[in-house]
Amino acid sequence: MHKSPHTKKAKTRITKNVRAQDLPVVLVHRLPAFNLLFKSRLHNHFTLLHPPLDSPDSVHSFLSRHAASIRALVAVGSTPVKSQILDLLPALEIVVCSSAGIDHVELSECRRRGLLVTSAGNAFSEDVADYSVALLIDVLRRVSAGNRFVRAGLWPQHGSYPLGSTLVGKRVGIVGLGSIGSEIAKRLPAFGCSIAYTSRKKKSGVSYPFFENVHDLAADSNVLIVCCALTNQTRHMINKDVMMALGKKGVIVNVGRGALIDEKELVQSLLRGEIGGAGLDVYENEPHVPEELFKLDNVVLSRHVAVMTLNLSKHCRM
Amino acid sequence: MHKSPHTKKAKTRITKNVRAQDLPVVLVHRLPAFNLLFKSRLHNHFTLLHPPLDSPDSVHSFLSRHAASIRALVAVGSTPVKSQILDLLPALEIVVCSSAGIDHVELSECRRRGLLVTSAGNAFSEDVADYSVALLIDVLRRVSAGNRFVRAGLWPQHGSYPLGSTLVGKRVGIVGLGSIGSEIAKRLPAFGCSIAYTSRKKKSGVSYPFFENVHDLAADSNVLIVCCALTNQTRHMINKDVMMALGKKGVIVNVGRGALIDEKELVQSLLRGEIGGAGLDVYENEPHVPEELFKLDNVVLSRHVAVMTLNLSKHCRM
Repeated sequence: MHKSPHTKKAKTRITKNVRAQDLPVVLVHRLPAFNLLFKSRLHNHFTLLHPPLDSPDSVHSFLSRHAASIRALVAVGSTPVKSQILDLLPALEIVVCSSAGIDHVELSECRRRGLLVTSAGNAFSEDVADYSVALLIDVLRRVSAGNRFVRAGLWPQHGSYPLGSTLVGKRVGIVGLGSIGSEIAKRLPAFGCSIAYTSRKKKSGVSYPFFENVHDLAADSNVLIVCCALTNQTRHMINKDVMMALGKKGVIVNVGRGALIDEKELVQSLLRGEIGGAGLDVYENEPHVPEELFKLDNVVLSRHVAVMTLNLSKHCRM
Repeated sequence: MHKSPHTKKAKTRITKNVRAQDLPVVLVHRLPAFNLLFKSRLHNHFTLLHPPLDSPDSVHSFLSRHAASIRALVAVGSTPVKSQILDLLPALEIVVCSSAGIDHVELSECRRRGLLVTSAGNAFSEDVADYSVALLIDVLRRVSAGNRFVRAGLWPQHGSYPLGSTLVGKRVGIVGLGSIGSEIAKRLPAFGCSIAYTSRKKKSGVSYPFFENVHDLAADSNVLIVCCALTNQTRHMINKDVMMALGKKGVIVNVGRGALIDEKELVQSLLRGEIGGAGLDVYENEPHVPEELFKLDNVVLSRHVAVMTLNLSKHCRM
């Protein structure tokens, strides 16, 4: 990416004048499944502490050695931030989440300790919206499944492969019209889709039809795109009833959190053909993906990556 | 799909009053690779003749028996319509192509015989545009490749898979701003992409930057979407030079015709990493797809299906 002369100059100044021991100490808190990206960009500004990932005991001993200096914790991906770790960090001032959702952080504990908690906000909204649209078109038009068919060398032998369904005229229900949902709603009308939504409350200044609950939205939609925050109120909000209301040809796209959907019911509904297909970027127990889905061609599986691109760095410029 | 009472009534009337022997005789002209869709809808209006597909000799004898009654020929997919077959059909009045492109029809021969030639016109443009966008996002964000990664059960073991690239800020060059190209141009600005184009001539009333030739367009673009007609002038227009101008990170999407691209050079450029990726719905020698592409994760392969959806029937209502 293009770097302005201004950015370059500022960077050089910092590198020259600040010595490593003066940099703020940041604890990189992560499960082995999550990697901290763009480490090299952080090294110029912070001393990054990486605790061992092997056992709770060694983490404990590592943290007790460094506790006094750790003023910031960066929670990578959906690594839980609970009182157990907060108890070990008396000098902590801020919890920085690399994700937009912060359902993995015990917020009441943070509040009690007076900690600041930051999320990625809407920095990723456009990329997530792009990915949602790709999952939707992929499921409807069978892009990935067709790709597998061609790669397996089956086109010359079999000639045809089942056709997909057009986007024109599809009624798309957006579950959560926050910054991601709004970006999705911007993209789909050009494809001939109509938009409706449900949200905690009706948004002012928004002309899309509002539904009080997700069941009624599903009953009026061909597609549900799930992109709201995971809270106690939204956990398993896409349940069996909602799927039945969506119906046999209905498609679900989930780029929010796995637990927004009752995953067991989703798998059963897909296996029984009670809904038409799904595009899933998130799961209840990542990186575990229900294996029954591997054999279904009307399902597109992704690895919690809707937020992530190489150009993530545009948000990390310092 | 919803049928209006008007349509239903008209259909019943035809079925009642017209006997099979009075229906116009239509020759279904197709290579084994192509199927005529929605036959049942045509049966009420036409007597469809299906010549044997096994050998030229048996086709010849079949046609000589029926020649006098055949007033229309429907050319399925890109089945060639050449003087050899036209010579056998003295009563022919019209060649009906099921495709938007008619590069497979020997137009000079049709003109000489006073035959009408019809194409699918812009009936498919929206579906092709949708598919092009899906191929583009798929290549950039690695949707299909990620789907394979998850389905192979590799997420828990490997954790990460290479990230894709954002759409925001991408400069997209459209090769052929006809009805498909225009539909693509309608969809992409909502994703933060900018549009430029090349075409036989600059379009009036269009504000996107126009480039006189595809090489200059490629040099100024991150992505080329190829969706023009195949003619003697456009054959292999995407050649080695154009690919080099597009560059190492450049992506090519082809939903036009395979021969618009020099396929051998495309394969070599992809294998050598001289371009960044490709989304291909069409090939020079369908249904043959160059096998070297099967192992590349930055390529999405499709089976000449961008025009086709189950809802194709909306265009076939009679």
